[in-house]
Amino acid sequence: MQLPEKVEIIEVCPRDGLQNIKTPIPTEVKIAIIDQLVDCGFNWIEATSFVHPRAIPQMADAAEVLTTVKARHGSKVGFIALAPNLFGAKRAIEAGADAITFVASASEKHNLENTRQTIEQSIAAFAEVCKIKADRKVRLAIATAFDCPFAGAVAPAQVVKLIEAGLAAGADEFLLADTIGTASPRQMDALLSLVRVKYPQLSFILHIHDTQGMGLANVLTALNFGVTRFEGSAFGLGGCPFAPGAAGNIATEDLVNMLHKLGVDTGLDYEKIIQVAHFIEAKLGILPVGHMARVACPQQ
Amino acid sequence: MQLPEKVEIIEVCPRDGLQNIKTPIPTEVKIAIIDQLVDCGFNWIEATSFVHPRAIPQMADAAEVLTTVKARHGSKVGFIALAPNLFGAKRAIEAGADAITFVASASEKHNLENTRQTIEQSIAAFAEVCKIKADRKVRLAIATAFDCPFAGAVAPAQVVKLIEAGLAAGADEFLLADTIGTASPRQMDALLSLVRVKYPQLSFILHIHDTQGMGLANVLTALNFGVTRFEGSAFGLGGCPFAPGAAGNIATEDLVNMLHKLGVDTGLDYEKIIQVAHFIEAKLGILPVGHMARVACPQQ
Repeated sequence: MQLPEKVEIIEVCPRDGLQNIKTPIPTEVKIAIIDQLVDCGFNWIEATSFVHPRAIPQMADAAEVLTTVKARHGSKVGFIALAPNLFGAKRAIEAGADAITFVASASEKHNLENTRQTIEQSIAAFAEVCKIKADRKVRLAIATAFDCPFAGAVAPAQVVKLIEAGLAAGADEFLLADTIGTASPRQMDALLSLVRVKYPQLSFILHIHDTQGMGLANVLTALNFGVTRFEGSAFGLGGCPFAPGAAGNIATEDLVNMLHKLGVDTGLDYEKIIQVAHFIEAKLGILPVGHMARVACPQQ
Repeated sequence: MQLPEKVEIIEVCPRDGLQNIKTPIPTEVKIAIIDQLVDCGFNWIEATSFVHPRAIPQMADAAEVLTTVKARHGSKVGFIALAPNLFGAKRAIEAGADAITFVASASEKHNLENTRQTIEQSIAAFAEVCKIKADRKVRLAIATAFDCPFAGAVAPAQVVKLIEAGLAAGADEFLLADTIGTASPRQMDALLSLVRVKYPQLSFILHIHDTQGMGLANVLTALNFGVTRFEGSAFGLGGCPFAPGAAGNIATEDLVNMLHKLGVDTGLDYEKIIQVAHFIEAKLGILPVGHMARVACPQQ
């Protein structure tokens, strides 16, 4: 095994996790979850999404969440906000986002379902976002980079096309997202073989869902390709409102547990992440989706 | 990725899965589950355990289950029975077992908890079983081959000691069991690096639990070492009555899904395995433990 010594985990539970919960979550609970996540040692936390409240009502308090956690923890943690369009990006910047995630899908059909725009329109909007980014990092999240719930398998060439368009527009970073959690290690291998050779200067971030139990097998495959940045969602929360059948993201606690057992440093406090999972369980009244929090919960 | 073209999956749900369920399951339900598993295409099914009914009351009907399924399907499927001692092995042979699984732990403490015998006593009993096996295969399952719930990490050297003792006693096959599902791909790598080189003539069978979500990552690691035989348990049922904290075995449907996506042939009908999972769900009234049956169940 050729494993990196250290990886960085970006925590996305406050955005990808919470946006998929239908019951309204009080703003102070969202902020309390972020407070605790900060204490776990993350460098980057995706705090919220500046999506239209009609599309995802749960994210209607995006500005309040972001300004509050930024004021409290801005000196030690970078806060990312998702923005689906130029308007959202402006709101995110106004609220103090340190980085912006913009989503475009490698699959045309998923892009239309998710954003009501063609990929070309999305990239045009992304270019506008890049123009106003100033010193913030702009991350292009390539959704359905492996499989599309509407169009099936996505060819790596489609991902490359989006990377090219993103680079031309001014992207700082790229996320490769297994949006529905159906990619196998073979698909991971095929895409990474291509993009790691074609773009040796780029550091790709993997965003994996664990729908079919292959999440950590995919992480292991990516580690062997030298990938050192992964997104995780405490408690295993997540999904995609516009991707039927998708389960949650890889649970951060599952990811950290495996990495530490592999001897890979994350800089994170595993026990504190488990405490966040317990807090989420108590506050939201739902059972953990990931494995480690289930094992750790005596009531299970 | 260096993957084998074909792997064999041994189905252990009727034994390892059902023995961990406290509510009594009617004998005809157990037999119906096995009937359906036969239809999925398995070459080998572990049908039951000839353990003392006081230790595991659920297995009290071992003889009836085995004789019935053997009479129905004996011409096309090999039936394995677990036997914890010589007396159990004699009962298994009498009921028509085609192969016998005998368990000894690499960890002395777990062996004592699991069997009330020292490893030496277990191996002495195993040697007696080998003497009466005739043309049946005798499989030595090495429990806690990676971690022990009582003693922590188990050194690969302890596993090698058990392999040596097993070979001297007359074992036909060896199972390496991650009894509590805590092994990481690094531990998998360490043990397989050693035993695959030391015993190139032996075909090891992996028996993995998915407590911490690393099950398929471990399978992937083992595939890269050329391992071609894995045990799975439909629905993800399983555990160990004497190993606190262990979750179920890798769900056969999860394992088959990944293998087929990797282009590895299993000879199994995935859709039929999902149907067995639905049948188990309906009959036992419990929710699936593995991933694929949860995704496939509309009521989830």
